[in-house]
Amino acid sequence: MRKDPFKPAARVAGQRQDVWSIVNEAALASPVQPITNLGQGFFGYNPPEFVLDAAREALGKVECNQYSPTKGRPRLKKAIANAYSPHFNRMINPDTEVTITTGANEGMLSAFMGFLEAGDEVIVFEPFFDQYISNIEMPGGKVVYVPMTPPKNGATQTTSAGEWFVDMEVLEDKITDKTRMIVLNSPHNPVGKVFSKEELQAIGGLCVKHNIIILSDEVYDRLYYVPFTRIATLSPEIAALTLTVGSAGKNFYATGWRVGYLIGPEHLIKYVSAAHTRICYSSVSPLQEATAVAFERADEEGFWDDSKKEMKGKMERFNEVWDELGLPYSIPQGGYFVLVNLAKVKLPADYPFPDHVANRPRDFKLSWFCIMELGVAAIPPTEFFTDANAHIVEDWLRFAVCKEDKILESAKERLRGLRKYIK
Amino acid sequence: MRKDPFKPAARVAGQRQDVWSIVNEAALASPVQPITNLGQGFFGYNPPEFVLDAAREALGKVECNQYSPTKGRPRLKKAIANAYSPHFNRMINPDTEVTITTGANEGMLSAFMGFLEAGDEVIVFEPFFDQYISNIEMPGGKVVYVPMTPPKNGATQTTSAGEWFVDMEVLEDKITDKTRMIVLNSPHNPVGKVFSKEELQAIGGLCVKHNIIILSDEVYDRLYYVPFTRIATLSPEIAALTLTVGSAGKNFYATGWRVGYLIGPEHLIKYVSAAHTRICYSSVSPLQEATAVAFERADEEGFWDDSKKEMKGKMERFNEVWDELGLPYSIPQGGYFVLVNLAKVKLPADYPFPDHVANRPRDFKLSWFCIMELGVAAIPPTEFFTDANAHIVEDWLRFAVCKEDKILESAKERLRGLRKYIK
Ligand SMILES: Cc1ncc(COP(=O)(O)O)c(C=O)c1O
Ligand SMILES: Cc1ncc(COP(=O)(O)O)c(C=O)c1O
Repeated sequence: MRKDPFKPAARVAGQRQDVWSIVNEAALASPVQPITNLGQGFFGYNPPEFVLDAAREALGKVECNQYSPTKGRPRLKKAIANAYSPHFNRMINPDTEVTITTGANEGMLSAFMGFLEAGDEVIVFEPFFDQYISNIEMPGGKVVYVPMTPPKNGATQTTSAGEWFVDMEVLEDKITDKTRMIVLNSPHNPVGKVFSKEELQAIGGLCVKHNIIILSDEVYDRLYYVPFTRIATLSPEIAALTLTVGSAGKNFYATGWRVGYLIGPEHLIKYVSAAHTRICYSSVSPLQEATAVAFERADEEGFWDDSKKEMKGKMERFNEVWDELGLPYSIPQGGYFVLVNLAKVKLPADYPFPDHVANRPRDFKLSWFCIMELGVAAIPPTEFFTDANAHIVEDWLRFAVCKEDKILESAKERLRGLRKYIK
Repeated sequence: MRKDPFKPAARVAGQRQDVWSIVNEAALASPVQPITNLGQGFFGYNPPEFVLDAAREALGKVECNQYSPTKGRPRLKKAIANAYSPHFNRMINPDTEVTITTGANEGMLSAFMGFLEAGDEVIVFEPFFDQYISNIEMPGGKVVYVPMTPPKNGATQTTSAGEWFVDMEVLEDKITDKTRMIVLNSPHNPVGKVFSKEELQAIGGLCVKHNIIILSDEVYDRLYYVPFTRIATLSPEIAALTLTVGSAGKNFYATGWRVGYLIGPEHLIKYVSAAHTRICYSSVSPLQEATAVAFERADEEGFWDDSKKEMKGKMERFNEVWDELGLPYSIPQGGYFVLVNLAKVKLPADYPFPDHVANRPRDFKLSWFCIMELGVAAIPPTEFFTDANAHIVEDWLRFAVCKEDKILESAKERLRGLRKYIK
């Protein structure tokens, strides 16, 4: 008889409280209510009406409420192939080169499940989107980290997110016989960097040289404020190794819809689909149908241009408060997150942080302090680093601007309260 | 440099064509069009209007389109706790004893991911819902099979699905030091058996004796035509070991919504949630909200009674055709599948089966033949058995009756064409 029937598997047994629950708990406990929440990257407003209408209409159709094909609804795969073919400079085959998943998240898990055997290595840049790590470890993969470093003067001067730097020699040093995949993310969360063509060429070259599958997380692909290159477009050799990941949730302001997709060559896509079938069987049908309509009509609705312009406007208006306060930030080249350097903010020496915050890096204390004293929630980015490299970002906080303008204005007003702590 | 960058992981590399694609391919190739499809268990009609209305309304709310908490929307957990407390004879705590998943499928995967380490054994009855196997193997679990056997006279006489038999001695023999979990399914797919209280007591007793976690797949829990017992209600010791799995898709005729749930003690549920967070992050928000309303209002709408009565009526009317033809079947005690014994159907000796059907058991040939000659699709149940035990059901086919009445009538009319092959 087993002595320990309730013992969880190691993969879920982790003890440390995650950043989201720490921030949410603080938000609930703050004396300033309601909290102005610029923490998690969900939208503070609805998907556009033409997309919501499509969802409502889909709900009326019998086949849109029942299981979809495991690889996704044909209409959606076709809409995605049509929408992306011009961006990939080739005709994407909707039947063999696109597959639909339950959000980008489960899409990436499916890619790892499709290719990793126990002990295979996957290179991930720090900071990383936290789900990558557990998703790589679930099939027994080993994460190998390569740090991105902020510009040297990032603590004293506002700089471009593009200046966050990947050392290609460090990257090549980390490649071994066991390196199976690399994860890229551009536009990058939380840095806001859009990788340049030259950087992607260097990375792609290494992947071709060492036969490494590239998982390119491009969920913010419609929000770029400088020229945006997709690594899959750089050469046929790179394309043969590349899976590009997208998210209808990010594209159409509907993070709760859980519709993601991968685009890539058939010899990669088919195993992603196979893994997805075993994980979720199929993805949510009526919202797949609505996403198909969203992609079909986005251009004629002028949605992509509006969406980019709107987000850029929010970003610029929000960041004015940092200029006012004299706090340096990293000007995002894409996405909806901004990293701000709060080295100049002096936290009161005797401030009563709870233990689970006190024993984390300074950014956790900054986050807690802003929630409690100002009523503004932001995310401490050391959560997206390994302990060894956490010091790199311990003075920064990540703010999400995908919120209503009045929320952003209220955040600015509250953040002005930082002035008295800036020395 | 890796020689084989495109080699898939073993877990997705399986070669054999699955039953769903064989049946679909045959359906497309059949000279009889359109096919009357009683194959896969999706509904041929829509969810009830009050549920669709709730979904449409949810789409208008900002927070219903964004990420839900990873454990599920509080309103849905509460609605499920309220709806199920009377069936569990105790108050279910919505915050700690309920968790929401992306369909029952990913819910079960989350349970396996939450508790299985490589080499742990899981007992599964044959026939089994096919996804169990890959879901157990993904975290490195080993499936240990225990056959259910049809009644001895099942080939000559119509019998009750309740007579499909689990030998408790065989079951206990299969328990080892490595047995970590057992999967139950009642009402059972494809057998239609509702496990009796005595059977569940025997199984539960063994699980308590050996400290085995019980994963009780009760997705057809609202469709039973004989008294239905939930194993979690049998004793506190059994309850402490039991995770009960449900599916809003099955309950509300919306298999494409991908909303599932697990109910159980906190010490089990919390690790299911933890695994789910790593797999899908969270589940589809607007349809969680609609499912909350569905559970809140189902009783007052008289939905559960109507739903059961309607399905029972479909089942009985459809099965008349087997009585007419003199083909024995297994009268379902629950769910919407019926197993029919076609031993008396003589397939033409020279019938041209394609290779991938010719080299499978006789039920695959029966299925192919019905599709091609009669235009009726059904599922060969040997797919739900291991090769060693497949012979047990090689004369049976599984028909799904969750279809519109006119489809069922057309199926009956077409199936009368079997008469000339019955010797
Ligand atoms: C970089 C990155 N990748 C993937 C995701 C997950 O996307 P989805 O909601 O489609 O699963 C996120 C969400 O925050 C993200 O920031
Ligand atoms: C026995 C059984 N369990 C689980 C499932 C999956 O349910 P869901 O669609 O909620 O993932 C099915 C679907 O056919 C089933 O028959």
